[in-house]
Amino acid sequence: MKKQYSLDELARFLDAKLHGDASCVITAIAPIDEAHAGQLSFLENAKYRDALKVTQATAVIVRAEDVQHVPANALIVTDPYLAYAKLTSLFNDAPKAAAGIHSTAIIGQDCHIDPSASIGAYVVIGNGVTIAKDAIIGALAFIDDHVQIGAETCLHPRVVLYHRVTIGMRVIIHSGAVIGADGFGNANDRGRWQKIYQLGAVAIGDDVEIGANTTIDRGALSDTIIANGVKLDNQIQIGHNVQIGESTAVAGCTGIAGSTVIGKHCMIGGGVGISGHIKIVDGVIITGMSGVPQSLEKPGIYSSTIPVAPQLTWWRVIMRLMKIDELAKRVKTLEKKLNNG
Amino acid sequence: MKKQYSLDELARFLDAKLHGDASCVITAIAPIDEAHAGQLSFLENAKYRDALKVTQATAVIVRAEDVQHVPANALIVTDPYLAYAKLTSLFNDAPKAAAGIHSTAIIGQDCHIDPSASIGAYVVIGNGVTIAKDAIIGALAFIDDHVQIGAETCLHPRVVLYHRVTIGMRVIIHSGAVIGADGFGNANDRGRWQKIYQLGAVAIGDDVEIGANTTIDRGALSDTIIANGVKLDNQIQIGHNVQIGESTAVAGCTGIAGSTVIGKHCMIGGGVGISGHIKIVDGVIITGMSGVPQSLEKPGIYSSTIPVAPQLTWWRVIMRLMKIDELAKRVKTLEKKLNNG
Amino acid sequence: MKKQYSLDELARFLDAKLHGDASCVITAIAPIDEAHAGQLSFLENAKYRDALKVTQATAVIVRAEDVQHVPANALIVTDPYLAYAKLTSLFNDAPKAAAGIHSTAIIGQDCHIDPSASIGAYVVIGNGVTIAKDAIIGALAFIDDHVQIGAETCLHPRVVLYHRVTIGMRVIIHSGAVIGADGFGNANDRGRWQKIYQLGAVAIGDDVEIGANTTIDRGALSDTIIANGVKLDNQIQIGHNVQIGESTAVAGCTGIAGSTVIGKHCMIGGGVGISGHIKIVDGVIITGMSGVPQSLEKPGIYSSTIPVAPQLTWWRVIMRLMKIDELAKRVKTLEKKLNNG
Repeated sequence: MKKQYSLDELARFLDAKLHGDASCVITAIAPIDEAHAGQLSFLENAKYRDALKVTQATAVIVRAEDVQHVPANALIVTDPYLAYAKLTSLFNDAPKAAAGIHSTAIIGQDCHIDPSASIGAYVVIGNGVTIAKDAIIGALAFIDDHVQIGAETCLHPRVVLYHRVTIGMRVIIHSGAVIGADGFGNANDRGRWQKIYQLGAVAIGDDVEIGANTTIDRGALSDTIIANGVKLDNQIQIGHNVQIGESTAVAGCTGIAGSTVIGKHCMIGGGVGISGHIKIVDGVIITGMSGVPQSLEKPGIYSSTIPVAPQLTWWRVIMRLMKIDELAKRVKTLEKKLNNG
Repeated sequence: MKKQYSLDELARFLDAKLHGDASCVITAIAPIDEAHAGQLSFLENAKYRDALKVTQATAVIVRAEDVQHVPANALIVTDPYLAYAKLTSLFNDAPKAAAGIHSTAIIGQDCHIDPSASIGAYVVIGNGVTIAKDAIIGALAFIDDHVQIGAETCLHPRVVLYHRVTIGMRVIIHSGAVIGADGFGNANDRGRWQKIYQLGAVAIGDDVEIGANTTIDRGALSDTIIANGVKLDNQIQIGHNVQIGESTAVAGCTGIAGSTVIGKHCMIGGGVGISGHIKIVDGVIITGMSGVPQSLEKPGIYSSTIPVAPQLTWWRVIMRLMKIDELAKRVKTLEKKLNNG
Repeated sequence: MKKQYSLDELARFLDAKLHGDASCVITAIAPIDEAHAGQLSFLENAKYRDALKVTQATAVIVRAEDVQHVPANALIVTDPYLAYAKLTSLFNDAPKAAAGIHSTAIIGQDCHIDPSASIGAYVVIGNGVTIAKDAIIGALAFIDDHVQIGAETCLHPRVVLYHRVTIGMRVIIHSGAVIGADGFGNANDRGRWQKIYQLGAVAIGDDVEIGANTTIDRGALSDTIIANGVKLDNQIQIGHNVQIGESTAVAGCTGIAGSTVIGKHCMIGGGVGISGHIKIVDGVIITGMSGVPQSLEKPGIYSSTIPVAPQLTWWRVIMRLMKIDELAKRVKTLEKKLNNG
């Protein structure tokens, strides 16, 4: 069912100032250069102001200083991108699961499942599990003993939670995520590996989002901890006993090795590798494809991203790089000669 | 059941010229140095021509110029590797699913499932889903509302397709793949993240293959698009609104960030990281473990792969590299001295 | 149910010398600086010896030379870390599956499932599958035709094994792992990709552990082989026909391309990328985030890890690096001038 709203409804939802026809009907959000009649767009960056002139959008969300450039109706806010973000919830057409336990779900003993929660088809739940009100457990999930899931949390289909994992409120976990598998712990016994059973668990705060096929390992002795408001993209690997601070965001394919502690409000790019047993303070930004072998003790932007070059150029760079020690010594020799000359 | 063919049958299948005993029986394909009696091999690269002399294969696929070196029977083609590729379909012993809907599959309302399609055990399908003829949905899959799946497409067990994803014809999706999960979209609201609901979908063309545990996110407003003939290996992450052009191949563990547009006939190595909002033209090749932070506007081979060295050597390189700016300045100083001297 | 042991029981389990009160009760293991009464800790590294002075642990596992520093009871062993590793099995509270086949499991024809094995809810098993004694198949697994699973092997929920995969004894496979999906094989046919069906399988030895969401592809013609005692972390991708030697350990997010052969007792860091068709000898250690494009023919530690720097510093390094060839030529010119001068 197509969702639609009058511009007036949207203005009130956003607490925005409305400029133009309050009764016009908005049926979708679209980028400013693709929008057509009936659609709402937004101008985030002044460099796209030219696109305003030719937009077909019925309305545009803008800052006050841009309203004069809008050829259509406008909603005036202080942060158009944030306003767009908020509006997306109104247009979201993802299917909503009905409350209740599907007849094929298998539930263990001593579980407390709120009647308002939704448990999908072929879900398997162990013993002593608590699922709070309005939580949604998508189909084909496996939830092991003594897991606790907070109110309004949504597990998309086919999530696995190992035993004793705790999940806060309003958490979203996407399909294929595995939370609480064993951390990678092995002790060397004369060349053979002795498994270290992982006795801790995973504790996930409120308002966390966890991407598809992301994995978060249980702690070795104490717990792996993901604080409130952390956002994890897809295919991230988080080792045992990692701690991630409030509202830190991590992009896809990043790996964080065991026992590392990451601060609050960090932004970690995609494909980053972070060593174990290090500490990263609050407010650190790490660019994509960087490696972090040591603690980062000051906030700021860090990088070791190497940009591609044409292959022949790159090969010459690498050849020279591998001889950089010799090059530096030759410069030293030159300096000596010249200064003594 | 072991599959076997006469050499004559294989020659006709390949439209190859047969040299030797047309009635000999072939039961398997094997590498030239491992093949024994009853097996067929192929010579792709002239540098392995010596292996021909001692091969135990009953027949070998070769180019015309190599037939004189074959001590056994031969099939003569212009591209032995391609001929081998085609023959593998004849020897494939993967189980074939029977047509029909398994009694344990749960199907929503208003679905159109062709009677020739196969729906496996414990599959959960939403409302308004279309599944075309001869499609195979492996066990334990979850397919959400309004998904469309083309003819002869095969989902291996335990694939997840979120709502409104469309899949073309003859597509193969391996186990654990998740198509259509939310893109990583968050707007910053005074330090806290506001979720941007992802209103687009994913559109996948014909003849695409998607590897195990690969993830492709749905678009923010418009769709993520994978064109015809694209081949994606395992554990790849494709962000929202990415577009990948026809017949581009991407190796495992590569991540492609949101809104990036990749051309046709590109080959992208394993473990590559590609930034968001960039454009890569047709015919680009990127070597494994490279980073691509900016658009690539010309076809060709690109690299930023750093090869390992013994650790002590590498540490010296890194130490010198981090002082390369100083080194360059010292060279500048020497040049000035010498030119003024 | 909380597990607890007398210190005497633990000493006998470890064959350790007991120092102090043999009857004291231990209910958990904890890090030395977090342990409190009733808990057991261990001192692995002499540099943490100061923590001994203030530990609240009821007992500490130490080497003989450290026992004088322990303010509590002690267990004396030659390798405290290994002793800790062994003890974790006693305190492991992971749920144990009951023997028998769950009523919802679907089993094909001609399977041999030992009565002591446990087959979980909604497991789907094909034809001709063998599952040996005391094996555990977690819920929602898919096991295709002709798979063989050895005694005491444990598949956590939602593992997929494609046809003809063989798994040894005492193997642990975590949730989301996919073993035996098609290798990435395509032959180019005038710009279009011809699929190469993957006719081999995967053979996994004894005492292997495979992490969550790790993927191991089946071989093209012969098998992909994982030897006894190999330990694979989460989110690893192993290409077709790779061979990994005994007791090699691989950390998370690493990718190993097709046909590469890795020796015994190697240790491969996280996020490493290893090219296809190369050979790595026994006893190689590769640091995290390194790239391995060529064979490594000598044991030792290898690295191409690039540590992050503050972004502005890094940009200057990269700018200079891309001109290193020119810099080297300028040094050459200086050398010529000075030597001829």
